[in-house]
Amino acid sequence: MRPSGRAPDALRTVSLETGVARHAEGSCRIRVGHTEVLCTASVEGRVPSFMRGKGEGWVTAEYGMLPRATHSRGDREAARGRQSGRTQEIQRLIARSLRAVVDRRAMGELAVVLDCDVLTADGGTRCAAITGAWVALHQAFEHCVLKNLISGNPIRDQVAAISCGLWKGEPVLDLDYAEDKDAQADANFVLTGKGGIVEVQGTAEGAPFSDAQLAAMLGLARTGTEALFAAQRRAIGR
Amino acid sequence: MRPSGRAPDALRTVSLETGVARHAEGSCRIRVGHTEVLCTASVEGRVPSFMRGKGEGWVTAEYGMLPRATHSRGDREAARGRQSGRTQEIQRLIARSLRAVVDRRAMGELAVVLDCDVLTADGGTRCAAITGAWVALHQAFEHCVLKNLISGNPIRDQVAAISCGLWKGEPVLDLDYAEDKDAQADANFVLTGKGGIVEVQGTAEGAPFSDAQLAAMLGLARTGTEALFAAQRRAIGR
Amino acid sequence: MRPSGRAPDALRTVSLETGVARHAEGSCRIRVGHTEVLCTASVEGRVPSFMRGKGEGWVTAEYGMLPRATHSRGDREAARGRQSGRTQEIQRLIARSLRAVVDRRAMGELAVVLDCDVLTADGGTRCAAITGAWVALHQAFEHCVLKNLISGNPIRDQVAAISCGLWKGEPVLDLDYAEDKDAQADANFVLTGKGGIVEVQGTAEGAPFSDAQLAAMLGLARTGTEALFAAQRRAIGR
Amino acid sequence: MRPSGRAPDALRTVSLETGVARHAEGSCRIRVGHTEVLCTASVEGRVPSFMRGKGEGWVTAEYGMLPRATHSRGDREAARGRQSGRTQEIQRLIARSLRAVVDRRAMGELAVVLDCDVLTADGGTRCAAITGAWVALHQAFEHCVLKNLISGNPIRDQVAAISCGLWKGEPVLDLDYAEDKDAQADANFVLTGKGGIVEVQGTAEGAPFSDAQLAAMLGLARTGTEALFAAQRRAIGR
Amino acid sequence: MRPSGRAPDALRTVSLETGVARHAEGSCRIRVGHTEVLCTASVEGRVPSFMRGKGEGWVTAEYGMLPRATHSRGDREAARGRQSGRTQEIQRLIARSLRAVVDRRAMGELAVVLDCDVLTADGGTRCAAITGAWVALHQAFEHCVLKNLISGNPIRDQVAAISCGLWKGEPVLDLDYAEDKDAQADANFVLTGKGGIVEVQGTAEGAPFSDAQLAAMLGLARTGTEALFAAQRRAIGR
Amino acid sequence: MRPSGRAPDALRTVSLETGVARHAEGSCRIRVGHTEVLCTASVEGRVPSFMRGKGEGWVTAEYGMLPRATHSRGDREAARGRQSGRTQEIQRLIARSLRAVVDRRAMGELAVVLDCDVLTADGGTRCAAITGAWVALHQAFEHCVLKNLISGNPIRDQVAAISCGLWKGEPVLDLDYAEDKDAQADANFVLTGKGGIVEVQGTAEGAPFSDAQLAAMLGLARTGTEALFAAQRRAIGR
Repeated sequence: MRPSGRAPDALRTVSLETGVARHAEGSCRIRVGHTEVLCTASVEGRVPSFMRGKGEGWVTAEYGMLPRATHSRGDREAARGRQSGRTQEIQRLIARSLRAVVDRRAMGELAVVLDCDVLTADGGTRCAAITGAWVALHQAFEHCVLKNLISGNPIRDQVAAISCGLWKGEPVLDLDYAEDKDAQADANFVLTGKGGIVEVQGTAEGAPFSDAQLAAMLGLARTGTEALFAAQRRAIGR
Repeated sequence: MRPSGRAPDALRTVSLETGVARHAEGSCRIRVGHTEVLCTASVEGRVPSFMRGKGEGWVTAEYGMLPRATHSRGDREAARGRQSGRTQEIQRLIARSLRAVVDRRAMGELAVVLDCDVLTADGGTRCAAITGAWVALHQAFEHCVLKNLISGNPIRDQVAAISCGLWKGEPVLDLDYAEDKDAQADANFVLTGKGGIVEVQGTAEGAPFSDAQLAAMLGLARTGTEALFAAQRRAIGR
Repeated sequence: MRPSGRAPDALRTVSLETGVARHAEGSCRIRVGHTEVLCTASVEGRVPSFMRGKGEGWVTAEYGMLPRATHSRGDREAARGRQSGRTQEIQRLIARSLRAVVDRRAMGELAVVLDCDVLTADGGTRCAAITGAWVALHQAFEHCVLKNLISGNPIRDQVAAISCGLWKGEPVLDLDYAEDKDAQADANFVLTGKGGIVEVQGTAEGAPFSDAQLAAMLGLARTGTEALFAAQRRAIGR
Repeated sequence: MRPSGRAPDALRTVSLETGVARHAEGSCRIRVGHTEVLCTASVEGRVPSFMRGKGEGWVTAEYGMLPRATHSRGDREAARGRQSGRTQEIQRLIARSLRAVVDRRAMGELAVVLDCDVLTADGGTRCAAITGAWVALHQAFEHCVLKNLISGNPIRDQVAAISCGLWKGEPVLDLDYAEDKDAQADANFVLTGKGGIVEVQGTAEGAPFSDAQLAAMLGLARTGTEALFAAQRRAIGR
Repeated sequence: MRPSGRAPDALRTVSLETGVARHAEGSCRIRVGHTEVLCTASVEGRVPSFMRGKGEGWVTAEYGMLPRATHSRGDREAARGRQSGRTQEIQRLIARSLRAVVDRRAMGELAVVLDCDVLTADGGTRCAAITGAWVALHQAFEHCVLKNLISGNPIRDQVAAISCGLWKGEPVLDLDYAEDKDAQADANFVLTGKGGIVEVQGTAEGAPFSDAQLAAMLGLARTGTEALFAAQRRAIGR
Repeated sequence: MRPSGRAPDALRTVSLETGVARHAEGSCRIRVGHTEVLCTASVEGRVPSFMRGKGEGWVTAEYGMLPRATHSRGDREAARGRQSGRTQEIQRLIARSLRAVVDRRAMGELAVVLDCDVLTADGGTRCAAITGAWVALHQAFEHCVLKNLISGNPIRDQVAAISCGLWKGEPVLDLDYAEDKDAQADANFVLTGKGGIVEVQGTAEGAPFSDAQLAAMLGLARTGTEALFAAQRRAIGR
């Protein structure tokens, strides 16, 4: 039995709420169990300088965690004066994941910044951020279509992410914090609505894992992202 | 007529919701009109080194704003690598204001960190932060009493803050963003439940103001904080 | 009796000496008791980028303290790698105070940087900085008129600042360091020659203070700034 | 045909040279084709503070690239004042990979810092760093055994890393720079001598990839790491 | 004829004034022509951690320049967030120069920090700083003797510094700013009262210089430092 | 007898190897005894902004040390977030030394960055860096001539550097680390092929030194640089 009492393939309760940030072009509050991430998409009039004149858009991401999102208070990165390696790694992952499903030619030279701020952390924050950011990005592009900034929504597919792990040797879906800290392995899968793999990041925490265990975790992840894709579609009204 | 259409002495709708941060010893989400600030109070086992051995506690504060809390996206301070002068000024104000109503001797050598993070900004964020932080702090101290860390709640009075301004020469209460940016003067008042002044910060934006105008703004502020004190008492169940 | 032995409404000896910085367009060394601040005004050919093309000038300020201006040596901010929150708060205050009496339209697109460096600190450094900076700024504008950079001096009024405090419940004028550290309240008033209030910053250090005490401190501040205005006029030769 | 003209499963020429850093307890210069990384292992008398008193050792890593290791000169991170997100991501990966094969209980409270500095970059620098760092770490532990700091070498298995990619849809082994920048997908595999997976990091650069393609890349990686393990054993004289 | 009109071996007017910083244990304002540096010596109760338990003292130095000490305003290093290479080079030189004439065994485990802040710059600021810092340090040690912190003044010799240069091929003493910027070579000599060389730093700005020119500049420097030594002795009342 | 057993005027074994950095326009690995420095010269299409439009080129340098180049591991400057004063001092020296022998008018508006990275340190790293950087720079300029970026090699003379010291009062050439740390004085001489002095930096570590000792060290330095000039000529094939 895993610590949460969930079945190995059971996802936590997921909710996606849009339009939660008054000023942003797109926004989504995602809750996966107790994990809660506020995702906003901000449309900016121009791409960064290294992208100018290419006729393409750009999507970037920033990630943060409120100091008391966690069990014990963490340092505020703004006060410490720099973002941790973990933060930078996560925000690079979020941006790559979203760019994988956007036709940047169809964006023109617009840029979108995705801000993913963790209000409460209980495991799986980077995966929740990706899943929620997709909804915020979709909403922001719809806004751009309405404003005639672009002629159609440049999103070509859905993208969502979920973590899997090995608990006492058995693959389990969607680790919460208590499970994550004792799991033998932790793997994050970023998958597309059409079934492709955008990103796999698997790490053995204790003993290395096998090819079969990797494949089993990938299988569970597909189950999980199917549910997430359905939730995303509901959130955008499809 | 002021831009918001409110009467000169009308406060925006205020709500204070406690227990909103799963992990924090105390928390309060305050909404004043569209301004929304999440305040958490984190109890730490020991005071900073300059306070050790004095038999007194310490209360400090940090303030942040989500990048898209504002009309156009602002820089993330963690990414820029430093907190702005404005941020530092505000977090020093919040901490001073709360310390003014705490009997630090009665805290023992505990420390409490107040984190005030602005989710949506529409004027008055520093005042909302102080008002909400008081509730979070109260809740955190109640938690400490229950855990037998301290023998009684060391809060000696209520404290709340409200901004006033001069609109076309007339004093008005509780400026929202649209009013604030065109006001002739902007003054923040931090007042206690027993009627004392903890902090006054008045700034002329255009023409200087008069003694009578300062007094009139202080009078409006008292009206406003009376309503805030009542809301705080409801929030903590008194 | 207050620690300095002065009467409640007695200002310390004030001197303002101009032309003390060989290279600067304007400069003033202000001494208020033992507090000594060197203020220079540097005219720069162009405004910061966010001000360009508006046909207006800009006035900004920087504040520093020599490491051994104080009783025990303080860190050098350049060595520590960042300015403290206190430093940033003060330099923002100085700049706002001076801009309040300058007709920025009449400056054209010139910028002036006011540098206020504390050589010796004995309380009231921010107030001395504002009072001295006004003289340096005036001198710099006179220089610009002589050089035909502007057609007339864009200063529209005098501005000066003084601190007041509550000592054993009684309002007193112009706190020195020994008084400041034990005062119950500390308030800085930035006032104009024509009698307007530019900035009020009052902070209760111990018990909160009353409306009457605030009004009494404001009254004392007027007495103090009258003397400062006279000294400023003598310094600029009026 | 892939750009390098190599067969899909062909590794570049690999050499591992030990004892190349005069002062370090362990060192290895690894060359994989034109990629060249200098790895040193430095034994430090004590673990970081968060590890003290646990009776366990610690292994950490730092990664750097000489400014002209690359085609066009890159910024020196020391001059820019911070390590990039990429650098931090890589050094965290190197450290995790090595810790996966070390029995930290058997280290006592020693710490080892692995420095991996890229002298020439032609793709696969993080994989080369892991593979070379293992040899440097092994040599450093042998040194500790000789000095009677520990009773036996705490390394329990080999660990090596190799990249694979998709080139025109086909899986290929060991991408050089020219291949890497145009590949559809790039995956780094960190594998152990006994066949376990320590880390998988696969990223789609263009179109997402399939489960079968991931499995094929993992198969190629095993071929590649077998050759790397043999080279490591020769380097340590087994 | 050199730009200043001075004879090749003519020093500018030098004045050394002590006791100029109210709070410091030792202080000296040195003027060499228009160059003006405020030097303070702060006695600290304990040496830095790397020196503890050795029974020796430590002398360190910090150097700064007020932003408008120069013809055109320079950046404030505290605002820019770091000290320039030039600043660090100079403060290391000042500290080495003073340590060369102090018997650190005779200091006990006291530390002295020398702060040298340039109020006006007209060439030769680092040399003036060294010459003035010696007087401040001497005064601080006398203070320590009076307070029974040490049994005798640990200064064993005088130390002073002067720049020389090549002007149209001819060696000249004590360059001012106008001369310095067009000189072919610039050399700083730090010499002791007993005739020894503590530091030589000679740099060709245009064409390299010869052994004979170096020797001639050293000869001029001795002339200059003799006058500086006499001024130092007068300043300390010998 | 000096610690190394070498005669007072004996240089360590010197080797200069060119073309060691695959991507750089010029490169040289210099070994002086155990000291080993990798020097690369990178040609950049344009000069820094303060040099634009002057029709002249620019040469700058950066210096670094691998963390384990030294006996005990040093901090990585990129991780610490800033370059030390020593690093900045050295890279300024390298750049000045090389600019002294380049006709910058003949470079056009090209810039060259010299990167000198110490792989192993055993004393004299800054001198080795200068000597090796000259070879790398020469090679880079030859490359520019071949590419028709400039019409001829703008190097007008050779430049090399060597340290000398006082060992038990006697001048000795080319200090290694063991000698350097106990020497009474340490002097670095940067000399040109035609016999001029570009830079002299002499520092007394213990007792001050005399004019005669300075002259004797300069004499030894000439012996040393003659050997270095010959090695440089061989390295560039003259």
